[in-house]
Order: sequence, then structure tokens, then C-alpha cells
Amino acid sequence: MSTSGPEIEQLIQLFARLPGLGPRSARRAVLQLIKKKDQLMIPLSAALERAVEAVRTCEVCGNVDTISPCRICSDPRRESGMLIVVEDVADLWALERAGVGAVRYHVLGGVLSPLDGIGPDDLSIDGLLRRAPQFSELVLAVNATVEGQTTAHYITDRLAGSGVRVTRLAHGVPVGGELDYLDEGTLSQALKARTEI
Amino acid sequence: MSTSGPEIEQLIQLFARLPGLGPRSARRAVLQLIKKKDQLMIPLSAALERAVEAVRTCEVCGNVDTISPCRICSDPRRESGMLIVVEDVADLWALERAGVGAVRYHVLGGVLSPLDGIGPDDLSIDGLLRRAPQFSELVLAVNATVEGQTTAHYITDRLAGSGVRVTRLAHGVPVGGELDYLDEGTLSQALKARTEI
Repeated sequence: MSTSGPEIEQLIQLFARLPGLGPRSARRAVLQLIKKKDQLMIPLSAALERAVEAVRTCEVCGNVDTISPCRICSDPRRESGMLIVVEDVADLWALERAGVGAVRYHVLGGVLSPLDGIGPDDLSIDGLLRRAPQFSELVLAVNATVEGQTTAHYITDRLAGSGVRVTRLAHGVPVGGELDYLDEGTLSQALKARTEI
Repeated sequence: MSTSGPEIEQLIQLFARLPGLGPRSARRAVLQLIKKKDQLMIPLSAALERAVEAVRTCEVCGNVDTISPCRICSDPRRESGMLIVVEDVADLWALERAGVGAVRYHVLGGVLSPLDGIGPDDLSIDGLLRRAPQFSELVLAVNATVEGQTTAHYITDRLAGSGVRVTRLAHGVPVGGELDYLDEGTLSQALKARTEI
């Protein structure tokens, strides 16, 4: 569509590349921005410009923050000895929202996936092995996918003999979940790992 | 969450105010921006800055563009005599995508809604009445809602005696639509307005 100027068109195309937005919702978002120029478009433009300058990846754990080492790595109250290993920054944020407590994290940046050509050198596994001895427990909070579990096994193997306790998240029924909607794998895991009331 | 810097938090909050994005998808969008800083975040920041400068509302029809009068109003090939009246710029864009031809538009900026305190003076109806005599036909392409139809009636009344032909979009079965899923109002309208094959 050439009826609304290249600046508007380009903005729509860039918004359409964000996750969760397609061409149609990108157009709606841009129209909303234009309608609320003072309340939304100008603040967003300024916020983006500031973020471009400020955002950096934590050199220790791989989190994104505006300082490096990040707020979590430099927080002395998080010297609990527990290191949670996640695939992605989004997983770290999800655990923080859940308020899991005074822990530290390590972002792998993905999972092992030979089919996609992703090997140990493409993830931040060497960094993890260097950090591991400083912690008493390493929780592998990778996704419960084949690649996630492969990655967990690989890390466990590499840490064998290091004396670090390695654990993984519990499998089971999600809180608030209905049994009827759960897959068989989850249900049989939940039964195996049943606990005393 | 105070674990990722005020610049990142503010960006997430602004994204969450866009239509179609909630707090969760805003977070995902911002993470994607940060991950693809060079390919996505920096271009988006630059595009937004350019758009803030360039975007303006067409003084003639109410469309948004980077020039005023907009590309549609200043296009001499659109001297067809047909003026399509729409509620919103999004509707104008939808009609342009449908390729409705060499027409001009008038954006009302809403519909009459006494309950919300929106009267004729809040819409660009005076501007429409001034423009109307230059056209041979005025198509009221307002939404098929109560407010839309009220607005259409109001405009038709105000134009009575002006000699301008006033029409509205046809109601009927959407192309590709299944009868089974259509509401009764649409079906009975479609039957009433049946055409010879």
C-alpha cells in the first residue's frame, strides 16, 4: 500500500516482525500510536532510544539488564548457593515473577539441537561449568522438551565428579490444572512422584 | 519486577498499551527487540523517531499520512466523484487494501454516541457537509452497529435537499462465509437484497 507514506509503512513492517504481531495487528498498533502521538508514540520513541543505549547482556549470567554484571548477579542478598540454569532470558523473568527467592541464574541461550546444528559451543555451557563450583546446588530449569532434557543430561555428565548437587524442576500437575486436560506423560510422572499429604 | 532496569521496564509498559498486546506479550516483544538489537531494535527506534516527525493528519479528509493534504486527497486520478465516509482511518486503510478504486475518503473520527457524550460537533461532520457538494455520490461506509447506523441517518438527514446521492454498503453474506455461522439479521438482509444470477 503506497497511500500513507514510507515512514508509516516502514514502521508497520518493523512492528509486524515482533512476536505475537502480524501485518494486521501491526497496522492497528501503528494507528493507535499515531492517534495517541503525545501519550504513546513520543514516549515510546524516547523509551526505545534510551533502551538502545542502556541495554546490555550480563557478562556473568547472560541476563539482559542496563548494567553488567546485572542486578541479580551483583545483589549480595542472593548469595544463597543456588544457581538456576535456564534456556532463555524469558524463563529467568518468569521465575523472578514467580518469586522463587534469593537465587542466581545462568542463561544458556538455547538448548542442544544437533538437527539445527546447535552444539555445546553455541551455548554458554563453558561459562556455566566455570561458575558451578561457586554454588552448592544447580537447578536445571530447562524446558521439558527432548532438546531441553538432552541439554540437562549433557550438563549433568559434564559436572559429574565436581561435587555440585544437580537437580531439576519437578514434573506434575500444574497448580489449578484439570487432570482431564493433561497429557499422559505428565499424569504418569505426577503419579510416580506422588507425595504424602 | 525491579530486576532488569528502569529503561527495560518502561519499554515493556509502553508496549503493553498497544492494542493486541498485554503485559506478557509486551515482555516477549521487548525481549525479541533486545535479542535482535541490530536487526530490529535500532531500526525500530529510528523508524519511530522519523514517524514522530513525519506523521500528520490530512486537513481535508482526516487520513494519516506524511503530507497534508494526504496522498489520496492530492491524487488527481481520484477525481471520480465518489466520496466514501468511514468512521476511522483503519477502515480507510481496509478499503484501500481491498482496492476499491479511484475514490476519495472522509474520516469521521468516530460515530454518534449520546451515551458516551459524542455528538455531531465531536466528529468531522461539518467538514463532510462542506466537501459533499463537490462529489456526485457519498457512500456511507460506517460499521453496521447501532451507533454507525444512527450516524448514517444523521448525515443523510443533514444532506437532504443538497442533491448529493447518498448510498451505503450492501449487507449480505461475506464472500467465503458459511451460512450456518451467520447471524439471523445478516441472513434475512441477504435474502431481502437477493440478486438475479
